[in-house]
Amino acid sequence: MCLDGSASEYFDAAIARGRMPHLMELSAHGYRGLARSALPSFTNTNNASIVTGLPPSGHGISGNFFIDPDSGKEVMMNSARYLRADTILAGAANSGRRVAAVTAKDKLRQMLAHKLDGIAFSAENAGDARRATHGIDDVPGFVGAPIPDIYSAEASLFVLRAGVALLKRGEADFLYLSTTDYIQHKHRPEDTVALDFYAAIDEQIGEIISLGARLGITADHGMNDKQLSDGSPNVIYLESELEPEFGRSFRVILPITDPYVKHHGSFGSCATIHLADGVDTVAFRTRVTALRGITEVHDRDSAARLLELPADRIGDLVVLSGRDSVVGCSPRHHEISSVGNLRSHGGRYEEMVPFLVSESLNNDYFGRAGGDVRNFDIFDFTINGG
Amino acid sequence: MCLDGSASEYFDAAIARGRMPHLMELSAHGYRGLARSALPSFTNTNNASIVTGLPPSGHGISGNFFIDPDSGKEVMMNSARYLRADTILAGAANSGRRVAAVTAKDKLRQMLAHKLDGIAFSAENAGDARRATHGIDDVPGFVGAPIPDIYSAEASLFVLRAGVALLKRGEADFLYLSTTDYIQHKHRPEDTVALDFYAAIDEQIGEIISLGARLGITADHGMNDKQLSDGSPNVIYLESELEPEFGRSFRVILPITDPYVKHHGSFGSCATIHLADGVDTVAFRTRVTALRGITEVHDRDSAARLLELPADRIGDLVVLSGRDSVVGCSPRHHEISSVGNLRSHGGRYEEMVPFLVSESLNNDYFGRAGGDVRNFDIFDFTINGG
Repeated sequence: MCLDGSASEYFDAAIARGRMPHLMELSAHGYRGLARSALPSFTNTNNASIVTGLPPSGHGISGNFFIDPDSGKEVMMNSARYLRADTILAGAANSGRRVAAVTAKDKLRQMLAHKLDGIAFSAENAGDARRATHGIDDVPGFVGAPIPDIYSAEASLFVLRAGVALLKRGEADFLYLSTTDYIQHKHRPEDTVALDFYAAIDEQIGEIISLGARLGITADHGMNDKQLSDGSPNVIYLESELEPEFGRSFRVILPITDPYVKHHGSFGSCATIHLADGVDTVAFRTRVTALRGITEVHDRDSAARLLELPADRIGDLVVLSGRDSVVGCSPRHHEISSVGNLRSHGGRYEEMVPFLVSESLNNDYFGRAGGDVRNFDIFDFTINGG
Repeated sequence: MCLDGSASEYFDAAIARGRMPHLMELSAHGYRGLARSALPSFTNTNNASIVTGLPPSGHGISGNFFIDPDSGKEVMMNSARYLRADTILAGAANSGRRVAAVTAKDKLRQMLAHKLDGIAFSAENAGDARRATHGIDDVPGFVGAPIPDIYSAEASLFVLRAGVALLKRGEADFLYLSTTDYIQHKHRPEDTVALDFYAAIDEQIGEIISLGARLGITADHGMNDKQLSDGSPNVIYLESELEPEFGRSFRVILPITDPYVKHHGSFGSCATIHLADGVDTVAFRTRVTALRGITEVHDRDSAARLLELPADRIGDLVVLSGRDSVVGCSPRHHEISSVGNLRSHGGRYEEMVPFLVSESLNNDYFGRAGGDVRNFDIFDFTINGG
């Protein structure tokens, strides 16, 4: 189970108020710790990592959005054609497990279903699922819930309810359930809406445990406020800042970009920069590093090594911003009015995520959990760690 | 209250097992979140930050240990003579509050007591406290507990018991209680010893709350396993790695160094490097950055700006290592046998710490808590945030 955008603070706030009794019990009888996600701390990158067990350098998905080096065009990276590794899900199906992958946003489904001989559908497009293409018919009837709005808590709860239905009816015995972070983008952990959301998640966790499943829970990334004290977004506009000095010699790509603008308006804490031939990378990097709110600037080599990114898909520089700030292109690129109080992710301060397994870990895995465990170790831990 | 080495996972593990009911209630009725500590994530640095409300660039304490630029000698930085800012404690005393500062290790007491017209003593040297010099006599009698061994849970619990006694007897109405992290260096959150320790801390938290105090709780730094799979310390020996190429042209300083070797054997996740005149800083930095396990290498400028360190006290490079690794000089510098299963801190992955206030925050402070709140904002939040 990948609970999109679930910073550990969400669990803490709900547990303190008695709203997640099943998660609390799971923590005590199994294992709860923190894991390091893949950077940039985005959804596609980390879902690809979780289902392949690899960092982005291994699976190739460096964000939601990138410049395809073959075409030079800016394109979404949600197609399986960009995936460079096979998935654990496909492997499990090939080994005889009855596999199901359920996502909230349809953008993820295609990638997760890559070569999968099993069930795969999204809450968003639940109405489109057909046995021939998705491994299942009439999803709303099967789940017993109407197709939810993608901008709702129900979009995620539908995913978990689907998991419960698949287990109950014996349609699957190896599941990946991946929610969406609309609620976390809009609500802090203490907000009633967030507490109610996590209480509803906890009910489904209880159902899954009561069905006898071994459950691993992690997140793709955390979530932080990215606002100035007046509530407006705290944005470092890279194009605006750098154009006076460097003209049109560079392109800023925001790899958080996706069609679901209400979540974040394409404001995240990571950008990649592509430089024209002849631009002095060191000078450019020094200039970006000096911008207030920028916390890390990697050239291609250090991004490939330290951020474990695929070197051919990240441009010349990878830029991360701080806990309370995001990077943008220039104001005209963004629909700032669609954002509201901005909460977002993508940088170092959304890297650490919860990591839970419903069984107590054996010595080997307990030892590994204390080290530099990754969120994309969750399948391994859930299957082999108990 | 500064609970030394209290990564958030310690609270989570204890709460899940019902061992911290008072902290759980405080979280629900007041505020619990995460704050960013000062880097390097060490004890002296962060205690100085908490009592001054400033990052190290403001108060001058860049570690436990450094090369004094005036003398060129390697010295401990636990003397108030290195402190460049006045403390909130001294200020509160000057404004008429009855102030008490209680620490576990005596190394901290002198610094925290700087210009303080009030009570200041350590658990370690509780027997030495005299009214003329420490503002109080017969501490063991006053606290009702024997002087604890510094390598024990009781060293920290004594600090909290002292706080309760000071409040109960009306000897102080403005307190700073700072524990030591011996237990956290030796035990993971799920260990019985750690759970018992946090349960005992929780009892004292309950006492303090029941006495009507407004309570703020944070930590100086987190704590992580720093071991290889065979249980031996995972050390990057900087001197050994760099000497073949750079000879004797540099000195490695480990700012975690202090006389309490059983805690960590001087192995932490931060080092500073001083280069001889004429050494190419850029080349040296590039070489260090390439070492496996090193996550950040800052030159003086970027360390001063991004890590908020005092530029004259950090040498030429500041090096941070990863979540599961520490930096050392060379094997002969360390008593590796004294360490056991190494858990330590000092780097980016021990930067985030719990941040709790016993009253619910007003809108202004609740807003700030969602941003880039720092552990050294805890006095401000506790006093003004409710």
